Amino acid sequence: MSESIPPSTRFVELPGPFPFKRGGALEGAMLAYETWGELSPARDNAILILPGLSPNAHAAANAGNPEPGWWEAMLGPGKPIDTDRWFVVCVNPLGSCKGSTGAASVNPGTGQPYRLDFPDLSIEDGARAARHLLQALGIDCLASVIGNSMGGMSALALLLQFPGIARSHVNVSGSARALPFSIAIRSLQREAIRLDPNWNQGHYDDHAYPENGMRIARKLGVVTYRSAMEWDGRFGRVRLDSECREDDPFGLEFEVERYLEGHARRFVRTFDPNCYLYLSRSMDWFDAAEYGGGDVMKALAGIRLERALAIGVHTDILFPLQQQEQVADGLRAGGADSEFMALESPQGHDAFLVDIERFGPAIGGFLGKL
Amino acid sequence: MSESIPPSTRFVELPGPFPFKRGGALEGAMLAYETWGELSPARDNAILILPGLSPNAHAAANAGNPEPGWWEAMLGPGKPIDTDRWFVVCVNPLGSCKGSTGAASVNPGTGQPYRLDFPDLSIEDGARAARHLLQALGIDCLASVIGNSMGGMSALALLLQFPGIARSHVNVSGSARALPFSIAIRSLQREAIRLDPNWNQGHYDDHAYPENGMRIARKLGVVTYRSAMEWDGRFGRVRLDSECREDDPFGLEFEVERYLEGHARRFVRTFDPNCYLYLSRSMDWFDAAEYGGGDVMKALAGIRLERALAIGVHTDILFPLQQQEQVADGLRAGGADSEFMALESPQGHDAFLVDIERFGPAIGGFLGKL
Repeated sequence: MSESIPPSTRFVELPGPFPFKRGGALEGAMLAYETWGELSPARDNAILILPGLSPNAHAAANAGNPEPGWWEAMLGPGKPIDTDRWFVVCVNPLGSCKGSTGAASVNPGTGQPYRLDFPDLSIEDGARAARHLLQALGIDCLASVIGNSMGGMSALALLLQFPGIARSHVNVSGSARALPFSIAIRSLQREAIRLDPNWNQGHYDDHAYPENGMRIARKLGVVTYRSAMEWDGRFGRVRLDSECREDDPFGLEFEVERYLEGHARRFVRTFDPNCYLYLSRSMDWFDAAEYGGGDVMKALAGIRLERALAIGVHTDILFPLQQQEQVADGLRAGGADSEFMALESPQGHDAFLVDIERFGPAIGGFLGKL
Repeated sequence: MSESIPPSTRFVELPGPFPFKRGGALEGAMLAYETWGELSPARDNAILILPGLSPNAHAAANAGNPEPGWWEAMLGPGKPIDTDRWFVVCVNPLGSCKGSTGAASVNPGTGQPYRLDFPDLSIEDGARAARHLLQALGIDCLASVIGNSMGGMSALALLLQFPGIARSHVNVSGSARALPFSIAIRSLQREAIRLDPNWNQGHYDDHAYPENGMRIARKLGVVTYRSAMEWDGRFGRVRLDSECREDDPFGLEFEVERYLEGHARRFVRTFDPNCYLYLSRSMDWFDAAEYGGGDVMKALAGIRLERALAIGVHTDILFPLQQQEQVADGLRAGGADSEFMALESPQGHDAFLVDIERFGPAIGGFLGKL
């Protein structure tokens, strides 16, 4: 997987043993990250971006790498997250295969990849790893932590575990806990991978690779990342040209099927299946209520922030809007000047990646008032 | 599969050759059906029920079979579809494995199951088969045709192909055409089956059976048949007792996962995978616009009815409410006294099967005014 780690990515070693919430520990684990802009002498202009499940740390072009990143339109000089003002840090999640140590990494104790010997990964572990990176960079308190999707959970896990680590928070299409529809979708994605005979209890290689399982998992992901409304307008009932169709009697026929196929082909060999299983399960496990005696709102109200923004879209079925509303309400109960924004984007959960016209002003406006 | 055909089921033979819309024909094909109540001397009190993809013809207990059916609370003496007044016919769809001829049936020409030699099934073929049954029963004009889900498509296909065949129509969580989100879901279900090595281009048997593919297909179905809102209240984040959990590190942990597992176990061996593929694809293909020069509304407005009701629920993501609204609007444009009803059921697409408190009065009220 190393070819998918951008040249601009830097690494910090986590202090070993680095213990996991549910037991086990890592030795010599690395966290991959990139930075933009300059840390101010007062070290008070740092923003941490915690991404979703699959992105690497290269959120946007920077000094080390002019290639566009996955949030290119959002991040840079004069952009909504303005790197002329902010020192921005983006980490690749712990447990990923895009630079940070995960199940596909070599276990220094055995010289072999961890595979299923990787410890049970929780969202909190990734947040603690990110905290270590901040310490290594000399950042005691963030101006803001921005978390997208799974990263929204990671940001809350950071705030819950390390009071005072940030003055503000932007929760983008995230949530304070996994709910059963999302758990069901992710469980089904994991089952498709695990049922692939090539998964082989995690012992696949490039020749015997669980491609079919990953293909189903990815397509199901894309179905839940976008929205029916967007697809009605974008694909309708348009069919493929007959020359693009397969001979297979049940093969691709509609444009929407080709779209899913394209997503699957780009993903299945570029994301490690075991890493996918670990990260996916960590989302199901996350529940901020654990920090509030079983009460989500009490847990959120225990977080002290100056300002907060929780933002999402009407068409998101994976992290539905009421979950961002809950985050905004909870942080407000903790004393933050907290805003909930519901955007009209048709693109569903993925809107924050593509609908910069709506998300840019919302996030840029929030940061501008800090 | 014969064990799953209730003893009360009767059969009508379709005239051979029975040609299919997309080519091919069946010889000696049978359509399975059941009836309730008595046909009036004037033959004007008949109601036809066209079910969804998976049900058999046993919608409710009847003289031949006291076992409850899949719409037991809706159908019977004094119930919303009152069999003291109506002569009710329910057919098992052509292409199914629950009595009517489908891909799992024996091809009389070869003495072997059709498997993938079954002709390409369209919704219109099933509607034409149902028309033949009505003729065999001496029914020229239905008091109403009620179609649920896929059956809503079948009912429109019947009305589009046979003007004057019914005086009224109840479209229950149906649609006039498949849209890309539903196509994507069904395409993914079919792909999961086809990728199972045991599917073997349709040549499986009870020993080498595509159980994994059917399991994924069914679970994905259930995810889209219900709703996130229902599951939040029903399952929340409740976990299984530790004794119910598997040793598997990625095995079942949450109640919602056990719920899906139960659905999968009940389904995978009781519905034929090839039949599933054919019926699923027929829904993707259906587009009433073909009967209106590419214009759905024009096609629907070409249907002449006295009365119509299109009914659905806010939480349905597979056949979303705006599709029932379109049906109601189109039939109204054709001159029918046409009503659109949006119910508040939390149970999603499946609501018509379980939320009889809401669907019963709606359908019973409509029939009561006929």
